[in-house]
Amino acid sequence: MSAVTALRWQDGALDLLDQRRLPTEQLWIRCVSAGEVADAIRDMVVRGAPAIGIAAAYGAALAARDAVVAAGDAWREAIQADLARLRAARPTAVNLAWALDRMARQFADIAGDPEPALLAAARAIHDEDVAANHAMAAHGAALITPGSRVLTHCNTGALATGGHGTALGVIRTAHAQGRIAEVFVDETRPWLQGARLTAWELQQEGIPARLVVDGAAAWLFARLRPAWLIVGADRIAANGDTANKIGTYTAALAARAHGAKVMVVAPLSTFDPATPDGAAIEVEERPAQELTQLAGQPVAPAGFAAWNPVFDVTPAALIDAIICEHGVIERPDAARMAAFLRSVAR
Amino acid sequence: MSAVTALRWQDGALDLLDQRRLPTEQLWIRCVSAGEVADAIRDMVVRGAPAIGIAAAYGAALAARDAVVAAGDAWREAIQADLARLRAARPTAVNLAWALDRMARQFADIAGDPEPALLAAARAIHDEDVAANHAMAAHGAALITPGSRVLTHCNTGALATGGHGTALGVIRTAHAQGRIAEVFVDETRPWLQGARLTAWELQQEGIPARLVVDGAAAWLFARLRPAWLIVGADRIAANGDTANKIGTYTAALAARAHGAKVMVVAPLSTFDPATPDGAAIEVEERPAQELTQLAGQPVAPAGFAAWNPVFDVTPAALIDAIICEHGVIERPDAARMAAFLRSVAR
Repeated sequence: MSAVTALRWQDGALDLLDQRRLPTEQLWIRCVSAGEVADAIRDMVVRGAPAIGIAAAYGAALAARDAVVAAGDAWREAIQADLARLRAARPTAVNLAWALDRMARQFADIAGDPEPALLAAARAIHDEDVAANHAMAAHGAALITPGSRVLTHCNTGALATGGHGTALGVIRTAHAQGRIAEVFVDETRPWLQGARLTAWELQQEGIPARLVVDGAAAWLFARLRPAWLIVGADRIAANGDTANKIGTYTAALAARAHGAKVMVVAPLSTFDPATPDGAAIEVEERPAQELTQLAGQPVAPAGFAAWNPVFDVTPAALIDAIICEHGVIERPDAARMAAFLRSVAR
Repeated sequence: MSAVTALRWQDGALDLLDQRRLPTEQLWIRCVSAGEVADAIRDMVVRGAPAIGIAAAYGAALAARDAVVAAGDAWREAIQADLARLRAARPTAVNLAWALDRMARQFADIAGDPEPALLAAARAIHDEDVAANHAMAAHGAALITPGSRVLTHCNTGALATGGHGTALGVIRTAHAQGRIAEVFVDETRPWLQGARLTAWELQQEGIPARLVVDGAAAWLFARLRPAWLIVGADRIAANGDTANKIGTYTAALAARAHGAKVMVVAPLSTFDPATPDGAAIEVEERPAQELTQLAGQPVAPAGFAAWNPVFDVTPAALIDAIICEHGVIERPDAARMAAFLRSVAR
């Protein structure tokens, strides 16, 4: 079990580590209602698609508690406003809707107080996520030659998930197996999740690592020869095209240009067979202010415009392996993705 | 003439626009001695290879004034300590040594007070730089199809030069000619020269522009289709390999992957025929603190390591055109570079 965790159920409430304060401060925020969980998701106290899904699931349990108080046996109707509020907290997090749908499917079978049943369901989602991360970590680590340098982007660690992490989970396990000589961490502008969160996780566990600016990717692969770029995913299309944090595609081009390999690590819930390819993925664009200000201080002229997409889409042709909890898809394309999904469904 | 300037000789002193304060404040710092100019170069009040060279040339004129006061006719000996101090102010700025060497070559011909002669020599270096920038701008702009979007990296504008700029000079002139629909500006981590300086210059002149994070390069070329990446250079090897601000090589890979072209704009003084190729260029590495802190605030865990090279080297094979004041080298390689240099020397 990783030393780092982002969320825990305690004293009948959901405690979230305020990731906006890291790495300088470790402040836990207690959420006692679904509204507080929704606010925390919206305000990015908690981030990372799997962690958001788990937080929302616990939020649904809190919503049930309030719905029973307000409406008794009619809690299934009373809970809907809170569920809608949780669902709307972040627009593009696929795990958020997935977790809430799974919680809602429990409703029909519940007799009496829904809170214990829904809390157990939330805990199951949480536990399954941690178990899936360890399965992914084992699959991914096996691909890494001992003594390798690797580059990662954004934060895909214990903070972004139920624990251990996806791409960073692979790195954790591979390090424990002696496969990792050094981790390079993209600072990951504009939110600096690499600098603030991934660096903090690696430091907590004593894994040797150095920070790099995102623009250094090509020169890094040319000079220090990382063997792998290892990243997470927000959505994986039917052909393997992968939406992930802005900067991923640029880093993947840099890796490929120098013969390094690209590994995408994400739970099966991230796979979206209904989306044929990257062109069909809609990408959220965020305000210019995220680039023109930093820590509240202006770093560009007031009122200057920006193009600030949250994600980019890395074409499947640049990806050497997609890892999920069920195994590895090497050189993904539409046929291999479909065959893999068929084998998992059996 | 550009509305923006970084340095001016006034009242017998060198006034430098403090570029560390931009874009929030326009503060001029007056230098009345070579020591003050050297400090300003070291502390990056003034930056950009051509601007540093010009500032050092004016610094040599100030040094002569003090040397005459201290040593009279023996000023040629007395000035040496100040010249050495100017030369050591920044380690890798080739224009700095070039400008000081050119100033020193005047010494033998000077009779009487050296200050007026050396001030004239510094002004000549300054004027020639501005004229060279306008010549480069005309050569480069002619390559840009009207209505194009372009991406630039770092700051290569009036602030980095005697005026007008190199890569940004091309963009200024091309915009005036109706060739530029929109400029994308890499924020250029870690020093944010794009966000702080290039954005400010473009805003001053009303050129339509948007800021992007450096990591967005591949997605930008994929989605918004800039036709050119236009950058400056710190050193151009004999085969056309080009050292420039970290992030340039990564952006060039992104441009090439999407059929966009790469233009390098730099004065002939940046060409280094004695360096055969990029592998022979030594790249300065700077402290981790430049990545782990921002505006004095920590953005990564205290003590976290970083790999922080100032430059990268873009292979000539990725460059479509190198522009200098004497013309254009298309698809540069060792043979074309040598032929161009022979034609210029004639």
